[in-house]
Amino acid sequence: MDKKDRLILVTNDDGYQSKGIAELVKLANEFGNVIVVAPAEVQSGTSHSVSLRTPLYVNKFEHGFYCSGKPSDCVKIAIHELLDRKPDLVLSGINHGENTSVSAIYSGTIGAAREATINGIASIGLSLADFREDADFTAAVHYARIIIKTALDNNIAPNFCLNVNIPSVPMEEINGIKVCRQTRGKWQEVFEYQKDIDAYFLKGEFVSAEPAANDTDDWAVKNNYVSVVPVNTDVTEFEVLNDLQKWGL
Amino acid sequence: MDKKDRLILVTNDDGYQSKGIAELVKLANEFGNVIVVAPAEVQSGTSHSVSLRTPLYVNKFEHGFYCSGKPSDCVKIAIHELLDRKPDLVLSGINHGENTSVSAIYSGTIGAAREATINGIASIGLSLADFREDADFTAAVHYARIIIKTALDNNIAPNFCLNVNIPSVPMEEINGIKVCRQTRGKWQEVFEYQKDIDAYFLKGEFVSAEPAANDTDDWAVKNNYVSVVPVNTDVTEFEVLNDLQKWGL
Repeated sequence: MDKKDRLILVTNDDGYQSKGIAELVKLANEFGNVIVVAPAEVQSGTSHSVSLRTPLYVNKFEHGFYCSGKPSDCVKIAIHELLDRKPDLVLSGINHGENTSVSAIYSGTIGAAREATINGIASIGLSLADFREDADFTAAVHYARIIIKTALDNNIAPNFCLNVNIPSVPMEEINGIKVCRQTRGKWQEVFEYQKDIDAYFLKGEFVSAEPAANDTDDWAVKNNYVSVVPVNTDVTEFEVLNDLQKWGL
Repeated sequence: MDKKDRLILVTNDDGYQSKGIAELVKLANEFGNVIVVAPAEVQSGTSHSVSLRTPLYVNKFEHGFYCSGKPSDCVKIAIHELLDRKPDLVLSGINHGENTSVSAIYSGTIGAAREATINGIASIGLSLADFREDADFTAAVHYARIIIKTALDNNIAPNFCLNVNIPSVPMEEINGIKVCRQTRGKWQEVFEYQKDIDAYFLKGEFVSAEPAANDTDDWAVKNNYVSVVPVNTDVTEFEVLNDLQKWGL
């Protein structure tokens, strides 16, 4: 497909004013016509939420639209209401903070990408392992460019949803790109009680259940590789399905 | 395990005051000691959201606690803060409205169940295909009882997360229980524009991509079977992984 014919939808979960999405819009312009439909506010950790009862307010800005909803709402309203035609690719990010292992499930960045793929559009969610608002996206953009170009050169199929994570180290320290599976693990939560408001805040740290598994995304990022994990839209656990058949339900 | 030794955590996404959770608490008491940690308000469609920045307010009520957060927050704070020990089983529901096919991804009911399984606790998410607040749960409770009993009799493993959907028909019209895979499909959205507030509301209807596939959950519920789909916590798309390896990234 010719660059001038390609329509790319860009979204994220950090909001349309974040540095990460600005960097991604610049990059996406190298590959096609770009339109942004992104959340008005920060929507980190909103997973694949959809706004079932709340109104969605949509406003224009120079690169497209910002919307009061969740990342998945943005993709839905872009496809079904705001765009003249279905985009050829959806890019989500670049997220401020990594989304490896089960964080892919909590992530609004990946929620948006997955929503695109449910709608038959290839998607790439991109995250930099640096939560700071002013994070340095130099290496992230460099590797995102390679991955997007490779995906387009290989005619990325509409059932592909890629979860890309880039380590937060200077470019020369990155060892390359690794195609991975999701690391088994969980967040070990600690709830901080704040007495003055009688409320808890969720804190915690990721604990890998397989820290030595070098075919997984958490290992890759910790070892200065860019990880690429394909994400599913069918959440059936087929291994358990076989065991379950034996229960005689 | 003896009934008196079994600890069952009950949660949902419709809020601790819904009819569906009251029915589930009554049922769960037949199988063990029950504690509820459920959202204070309706949290439908919040998927696997987590509250990363907002305070979580927790209050006691007769069956346990209600919490200002999302369904997944409830499971996290139950396990890591509120309960004396890790529960043996997490039950989520009974949801007012079905969660077949990709609705499992959008669902807070299944988000909560999945969160339990990420934490190594077997879980069952239960949904009745009736959105009404005063829905009749007679058949739902009957089949939930069979499924919970069967799961416990088979020593349901901690990596099991089951998505159970019960059709909304009188009990005598239900044809039985079917172990299924998730139906391929999507919600065909329509955004209703409301002029007076200049905002959109998300509407739509589910469209199956495989309406004749009788091994899937949407087919099962439409044909008056109770569907049981095991849900994964590893979202790697392994089929795509093989194709992706060939890109030479």
